[in-house]
Amino acid sequence: MKARVFVMLKNGVLDPQGEAVRHALGSLGFDGVEGVRQGKVIELDLAAGTTEDTVRQMCEKLLANTVIESYRIEMA
Amino acid sequence: MKARVFVMLKNGVLDPQGEAVRHALGSLGFDGVEGVRQGKVIELDLAAGTTEDTVRQMCEKLLANTVIESYRIEMA
Repeated sequence: MKARVFVMLKNGVLDPQGEAVRHALGSLGFDGVEGVRQGKVIELDLAAGTTEDTVRQMCEKLLANTVIESYRIEMA
Repeated sequence: MKARVFVMLKNGVLDPQGEAVRHALGSLGFDGVEGVRQGKVIELDLAAGTTEDTVRQMCEKLLANTVIESYRIEMA
């Protein structure tokens, strides 16, 4: 089974990477880009029967820094 | 309006970052993690009326390295 974890910086946390992308898009002539936030997707190939709760533990322990990042889990 | 772009390494392209995560999860006692791929999510805040085609151009020109990465666009 597959799980997908999305990790984004929390609102209010400065995102210099996203800011750089916004700036670069402007330089390339793309107008109207008002904001850019960049985060991570982690696709996990898991043994059958792995629960969402286990994935949540993975996030808390390793995948996300919950002080500055929020995460969202999608099981498939 | 918002757009979300997912950028992943293509299949067959070595993903050392994902491999490191897989290894770390194993060390933490999470069994049954068979594979991990790590990619990027880019959330764009766009002026109203921006088309998916424009976002596609952003991907081709800046957001993804289409030699080794594939991307997927979600408009919201």
